[in-house]
Amino acid sequence: MEERELLVVGQSFSKIDGLNMATGKTLYTADMKLPRMLYGKILRSPHPHALIKRIDTSKLKRLSGVKAVINYENVPRVPYNSAGLPSYGISRHDEYIFDQKVRFHGDRVAAVAAVDKDTAEEAIHLIDVEYELLDAVFDPEEALRPEAPEVQTGTGKNVIYIPYAVGDIEKGFQEADDVFEDRYVMHPVHTCCMEPTAFIADVDSSGKLTVYGTTQVPNHSRRILSQILKLPMSKIRVVKPPIGGGFGSRQNLQHEGVVAMLALKTGLPVKIEYSREEEFFASTIRHPAIISFRTGIKRDGTLTGWYVKVIANAGAYTGHTPVLVQTLLHKNPYRIPHEKYEAYCVYTNLPNSGAFRGYGNPQISFARECHLDRIAEALKIDPIEIRVKNKLRVGDVNPLNRSMGWTLDSCGLEECLRAGARQFEWEKKRSGRKNRSAEILRGVGVACMMHLSGQTMSADCSSAIIKLNEDGTTALLTSAADLGQGSNTAMAQIAAEVLGLKVEDIVVMASDTDITPFDMGTYASRQTYVSGNAVKRAAEDAKAQLVKYAATMLSEKEEDLEIADRWIYVKDNSQKRLSLGEVVNEAQYGKDRYHILGKATFKASNNPPPFAATFTEVEVNRETGTVKVLRVVSAHDVGKAINPKLTEGQIEGGIFQGIGYALTEEIHYDSKTGRTLNADFFDYKIPCSQDMPVIEPILIETLDPTGPFGAKGVGESSLISVAPSIANAVYDAIGVRIKSLPITGEKILEALREKG
Amino acid sequence: MEERELLVVGQSFSKIDGLNMATGKTLYTADMKLPRMLYGKILRSPHPHALIKRIDTSKLKRLSGVKAVINYENVPRVPYNSAGLPSYGISRHDEYIFDQKVRFHGDRVAAVAAVDKDTAEEAIHLIDVEYELLDAVFDPEEALRPEAPEVQTGTGKNVIYIPYAVGDIEKGFQEADDVFEDRYVMHPVHTCCMEPTAFIADVDSSGKLTVYGTTQVPNHSRRILSQILKLPMSKIRVVKPPIGGGFGSRQNLQHEGVVAMLALKTGLPVKIEYSREEEFFASTIRHPAIISFRTGIKRDGTLTGWYVKVIANAGAYTGHTPVLVQTLLHKNPYRIPHEKYEAYCVYTNLPNSGAFRGYGNPQISFARECHLDRIAEALKIDPIEIRVKNKLRVGDVNPLNRSMGWTLDSCGLEECLRAGARQFEWEKKRSGRKNRSAEILRGVGVACMMHLSGQTMSADCSSAIIKLNEDGTTALLTSAADLGQGSNTAMAQIAAEVLGLKVEDIVVMASDTDITPFDMGTYASRQTYVSGNAVKRAAEDAKAQLVKYAATMLSEKEEDLEIADRWIYVKDNSQKRLSLGEVVNEAQYGKDRYHILGKATFKASNNPPPFAATFTEVEVNRETGTVKVLRVVSAHDVGKAINPKLTEGQIEGGIFQGIGYALTEEIHYDSKTGRTLNADFFDYKIPCSQDMPVIEPILIETLDPTGPFGAKGVGESSLISVAPSIANAVYDAIGVRIKSLPITGEKILEALREKG
Repeated sequence: MEERELLVVGQSFSKIDGLNMATGKTLYTADMKLPRMLYGKILRSPHPHALIKRIDTSKLKRLSGVKAVINYENVPRVPYNSAGLPSYGISRHDEYIFDQKVRFHGDRVAAVAAVDKDTAEEAIHLIDVEYELLDAVFDPEEALRPEAPEVQTGTGKNVIYIPYAVGDIEKGFQEADDVFEDRYVMHPVHTCCMEPTAFIADVDSSGKLTVYGTTQVPNHSRRILSQILKLPMSKIRVVKPPIGGGFGSRQNLQHEGVVAMLALKTGLPVKIEYSREEEFFASTIRHPAIISFRTGIKRDGTLTGWYVKVIANAGAYTGHTPVLVQTLLHKNPYRIPHEKYEAYCVYTNLPNSGAFRGYGNPQISFARECHLDRIAEALKIDPIEIRVKNKLRVGDVNPLNRSMGWTLDSCGLEECLRAGARQFEWEKKRSGRKNRSAEILRGVGVACMMHLSGQTMSADCSSAIIKLNEDGTTALLTSAADLGQGSNTAMAQIAAEVLGLKVEDIVVMASDTDITPFDMGTYASRQTYVSGNAVKRAAEDAKAQLVKYAATMLSEKEEDLEIADRWIYVKDNSQKRLSLGEVVNEAQYGKDRYHILGKATFKASNNPPPFAATFTEVEVNRETGTVKVLRVVSAHDVGKAINPKLTEGQIEGGIFQGIGYALTEEIHYDSKTGRTLNADFFDYKIPCSQDMPVIEPILIETLDPTGPFGAKGVGESSLISVAPSIANAVYDAIGVRIKSLPITGEKILEALREKG
Repeated sequence: MEERELLVVGQSFSKIDGLNMATGKTLYTADMKLPRMLYGKILRSPHPHALIKRIDTSKLKRLSGVKAVINYENVPRVPYNSAGLPSYGISRHDEYIFDQKVRFHGDRVAAVAAVDKDTAEEAIHLIDVEYELLDAVFDPEEALRPEAPEVQTGTGKNVIYIPYAVGDIEKGFQEADDVFEDRYVMHPVHTCCMEPTAFIADVDSSGKLTVYGTTQVPNHSRRILSQILKLPMSKIRVVKPPIGGGFGSRQNLQHEGVVAMLALKTGLPVKIEYSREEEFFASTIRHPAIISFRTGIKRDGTLTGWYVKVIANAGAYTGHTPVLVQTLLHKNPYRIPHEKYEAYCVYTNLPNSGAFRGYGNPQISFARECHLDRIAEALKIDPIEIRVKNKLRVGDVNPLNRSMGWTLDSCGLEECLRAGARQFEWEKKRSGRKNRSAEILRGVGVACMMHLSGQTMSADCSSAIIKLNEDGTTALLTSAADLGQGSNTAMAQIAAEVLGLKVEDIVVMASDTDITPFDMGTYASRQTYVSGNAVKRAAEDAKAQLVKYAATMLSEKEEDLEIADRWIYVKDNSQKRLSLGEVVNEAQYGKDRYHILGKATFKASNNPPPFAATFTEVEVNRETGTVKVLRVVSAHDVGKAINPKLTEGQIEGGIFQGIGYALTEEIHYDSKTGRTLNADFFDYKIPCSQDMPVIEPILIETLDPTGPFGAKGVGESSLISVAPSIANAVYDAIGVRIKSLPITGEKILEALREKG
C-alpha cells in the first residue's frame, strides 16, 4: 500500500488548534483558575552572590491572606539538574528549590502563597533577609582565574572542561597550505515567549500532586519532581496545557518545585505566573560564548582540520550547559578529517543559560560561517563553492551520534546552496551591486548550517497510542508537546495519512503524564521525526487491524486492499469498498467485539540532520551604522514537509528570531550587581513586523529513508544560519567584519573608523 | 506464575478516591465552572399530554442576560432512543431533543441559557406556550384498551408485546401435581442519586463539543449525540467527572442534547443542573409493573413450568423498556423445564421508566420469591429446601445469554442458602418465635435471586491500556465508569495484582471518550467482570514485557521469574531480584529505549450470574401496621471479592435501597394531571440511618473460571432479594401476604382486617 500518493501529508492545513487560539478560546495556564486557588510570588535576590544569614518572616503574620511562606529552611533540600541530566561525568546537580546561597541577581530566596496577587506581592516585601555578601564574577574569562570567587565547582573551580578530538589535529595543520584564526563573541539573548512562564500545582487529599504549566518536557518535569519531592511518579501528574512559546527556555524544571511545595504546604492549588521582568532573568537565556577557530585548509579549499575553543558562560547553575556545549561541536555540515575541541563551561554570577532554539548551534555556526567566509575570500573561492567542496555526503558518518555508528542517509546541503543561489540570484547580486547611495551600501551573504532530528549521543525514542472510534474517526494519544509550533497538526496528518482519514478526523490528545505514552518532549527538533515515527507506527498497527477486518468482510486478501479518504477498497475495483466506520462498527459491535487500538514504541535508528543555506541581502548605512535586512532566501533540506505552510512558518519565525539575534537583541547586565538592566520590551529590542524583510523559504525534500514519510527536524534549523549570513552580507557591503554579536551601529561605526 | 498467593486482590483497601470525596476535594459536575459559563434551564410541560400550538419567546427580549432559547422549532429533529438501542425489532427511536408533542407532566418544552441561574429561571417563566390538550392515560391496563389515547406506537398502539417460551408450557402444567397462581403489583421508585443530574457542554471555535456530566455511559452518550447532532465522533468528547450515584438512571442520554444545543447556539459553555424536584420526574424511574405467575409443581417441590405475564409501565418513551422487560425474564435462579412469558411494555403519560439497579429483576424477583414462598407453605416444604431443589447447577445452560450456548461455570446458590441460614439461625428463628408483645410480632423470611455480570443476549466487551512509569508505578486507562461504587479501586487492585504492585502505585484514568479505550459503561453489574477482565489482560500484556526484560537483565528464563511487591525475582532465589522501576528504567533509558505499554480488548465468553439468598427478620405492629426490619443476613455468591470491604458496601447499600423499595419509597402522581406529587425528600421517604437494621453480608466465593481472579458482578444483586424476603417475613409474622409494593401500614391493616 505504500505506493499510493500522499493525500494528507504534504498538504498545507491550518493548525488544528489555530482557530481556538485566534479566537481567544484556548485556555493557557495563565487563564486557568482552580477553585480556591492561591497566588504565589517568589522573593528574589537583590545581590549577585550572597549567603543568607537569616530570613525573618514574622511580619507576614500581620498580613491576612498569606497562607504559606517557604524558603531553604522548610523545603526538601535535594539537589537537581534542571535539565534532568544525571549527575555524573560532566554534568552536575547543583540547584535546589531554595538554597542558602544565592548566586545571581534574581535567584530564588523565598516564596509565598496568598489569597490574591496583591497580597502575595505585598508579602514578599515584608520578608526580611539578612545577607552576607560575597564577591561576584560575571565575565567567564575572569571566572577562570585562580583568584575568582567560587560560584560552583565543576570539573574545576567555576569550570566544566570538555575536550574532544577526532583524528590528529597536528596532522591536519601539517596537511594544510594555510591556517586561519578567528575569535568570535556571542551575547546573551532571551527567548521572549509570548506567554510568561506559569505553573499551577494542585494537591488532593491523597497527596497526589498535579502540575499544569509552561513546560516543553512534561515527562522530564515529572521525573525531576519525583526526585526532589521524593514522591513516586504515580503521585505526580504533569499536564501541558496549550503554551504560548517555548524555544528551549521551558526545556527544564522551572518553578514547578516552588508551586508544588506551596500546594503541599497549603493543601490548595497555587499559581505562580512570572512578570515580564522576571521572565528575562528567571528563565534561561542563550549562552553567551567566545568561540575561536584555528583552521587548516588546502589551496583548493579542502579543509584539513580545525582546533576550536569554546568558552561558554553557564551562568550560576549547570543545567543544560555541558550537554549543550558537548553537542554543539558536532552540528557541523562539513567533512573535517582532523578536529580538536576544547570547551570551557564557565560558571558566573549571572542568570542561568540554557536551551534556546539551536542549542549552541547559533553560536558555533556564527563563528564557523563567518570564519569560512573570510577563508573563502582569502583563497578567492566563491563562498558557495567552498561549502560545496567540504560538505558532508550520504554515507558519511553521522557526526551527531558518532558513537552509534550511524551514517547519513540524506544530505541536501548542495541542493540548498544551489536552489537558494538560483532564487536569490547570487551571482548577479555578488557582481552587480546596486547601492542605494554613497552612504547606504548593499551587500549579500550566505551561511549554512546542519542541525538534528532528535537527541544526540543516544537513540531517541517515543510512543503513541491510536484509538479508533466507531465511526472511523480516531483519537491519538501522544506526549509530543505542541508549544504553538504545530506538532499536534503534524501528528494528526501523519496518523490521518496512514489510516486513510482526513486530518479533521483525528483528535490529538497531547502531553499529560498520566494519560499520554512516554515521549521526551519538545526539543532537539525531534517531534516530527521521533514522535512522528511513533505516531506513524501506532497508526500502522491500527491500520493492520482495520485491513484485516475489512478483508474478511469483503472476502478479499489484505494485500489487495487500499485505504484512503475514509474508505477501504479493493485496489483493482474501488467500488468494492467499506467505510472505515463500517469496519470499526463490525469489529466493535459484530461478533468479535474487538476494539481497534494501535500502539507503538519507537526507537530511532538514526538522527538525520536537516541542512540549510541562507542568503541575505542587507543595506548598511555608513553614516549611522544601521543595518537593514532587505531579503532572506533560506533553503532547507527538511526531508519532507509534512505540512509545507507550517514548515515555512517555522522558517519564517526562525529568521525573525535570527535577525533579532544578529542585530538588535541583547540582555544587558549591571557591571557591579549583575542586575538585568533591560528586562522589558522597551529596552530589549526584538524585531517588529516593520523590521521584517522579504522572506523566501525554499523547501528541499530529500526524503530521508528513516523519517516519517521522509521528514526530518525543522523546528530550530531556521534560526541558525541567519546571523552569519547577515554578518557576511555586512562585510560584503562595507568591507568590515563584525566578530561579535549583535552587529550594532556602534560596532560598525567603530570598525569603519578603525579601517579608516 | 498463577500459583502465587494473591497480595492485592481480596484485600479491603479503602476507595482510592474516597479521601478526596470525604474531604470535599472532589469536583463533581455541579462544582465545575468554566470561564464565561452560562446557566441553562428547561421549561417543562404543565400538562400530561398536549400538542404545542405556539411558542412565544418575544418577552425574553426584554430580559437582559438571556443568550439563547431553544425549542422544537430551532433544534435538529432526529429521533433517538435514550438507552442507545438500535431502532428495529422491539425497540424504537421516539425521543427528540424537543418535540412538538409533550407526553408527560414535566416533559421538555424549551430551554434557555442565561448569564446566571436566576435569569435562566426567570426566563423560562416568560415563555408563552399555547397547548392543545390531549386526553391522557396513566394506568397501563387502561392504556391497553382500544379507546385509550395514543401515547406512542410500539408493536401495537401504546404497547410493545414480547412473547417468549422455552419447552411447552401445557406439558409443564400437565406434569404438575399442583398449579398456583398469583398476581403482584410493583410501584414506581426513584434512584435518588445524591448528586443531581448535571451536564456542561462546551464548544470550541472548530465546533468541537465537550460534554461533562453525570453519565454512566460516556461512549453511549457520545454515540447518540453523534447521531442526533449529525457530528462525527471526533467532534464530540464526553467526559465523566466523579459522580454522586447513578443506579441506572444515568444509563441513557439525559439532557446532553439540550446543553449541547445551547452551547452550539451560544458558542459558550452551558450548564444545566436539575433541581431536586426535577430530578424526580425528569430522570428515569423503576418500572411500575404487574406480574402474574401461574406455576406448575410436583408434590415433591419440583417445578414443572410456569406462565408469567408482565405488564410494565414504560412511561412516555421507549428507552430501556423493551430490553429490560425482555431480559428480566431470564434472571431466574431455578430450573424451569417449560416456561412461557408474555410481556406488555405499555406507554402511558407518566415520566419515563428506565434502568434502576436490578433492571427489572427486583420486580420479577419480588413476584417469584413471594409466589414460591406461598407454594412452599402450601406444599409444607421448607422455603430453603424448595429453592435448593430447583436451583440451577453448574453445567446448566446459562439462561442470561441462552442464544450464545453458554453454560454455568459456577453456582453458589445452595451455599448462599446454607451459609445464610446458619448465620441467621433460620431453624431456630422459624420455630422459636420471640414476639416483643401481643401487638409487635416477629417473623422471618428468605428470598433468592440470580443476576448477571454483563450484557445479556450478546457478548459483552471492554478494553484497557496500561502504561508503566519509569519508577514502576503505572497508569491505567479505562472507560469503566466509577459512579461512587468503587470500580476505580477494583480496577487498580486487579492491575496491581497482575503487575506485582501496590494498589497506590496504580493511577486510574477513567472515562473520557477522547482518552480512554472503549467500554460500554456502568450497568449490568459489568464493570468488575467485563472491564476487570480487560484490565487484567492489559496488565498481563505489560507484565509479559516486564518479565521478558527482567529475564534478560537477570540472565534467567522468563518462566523462572515471579513478580510481587514491586519486585521481579527468581522463584527459587528471591534475593536475586530487580525492582520494577529498575526494569522499566532499563527498558526505557537503556539500549532498547522501549516503553512498556500493555493493551487488551476483551470479549466475554460467558456471563456468570451472581446468586444470593437474603434472610430477614422483621417486627410488625398489628395496631399501626408498621414494619421494622431488625436484621438482614445476605449471602452472595460474588465469585471472588476483589475488595471485600467494597463488596460488602455494595451489599449494604443495596439492602438499604431494597428496604426503601419494600416499605417506604413510592412516587405518587396526581390522578388527573400525572404530576409528580412528592418530588422531594420530605414526601418521598427514603430510609434514614435510624431505619437501618443489623446487616450481615456473607461473601461466598465460588471462583468463576471466567472471572478476573474468579470475580462476578455484585453491583445490583444486593437489592434484588430484599423486598421479597421482607414480604415473606411479614407473612411469617402476621399471616397476611402483601402482594403489592410498598408494604405500607395501610395495606397491612387492611389485609389484617380482611383476614379478620
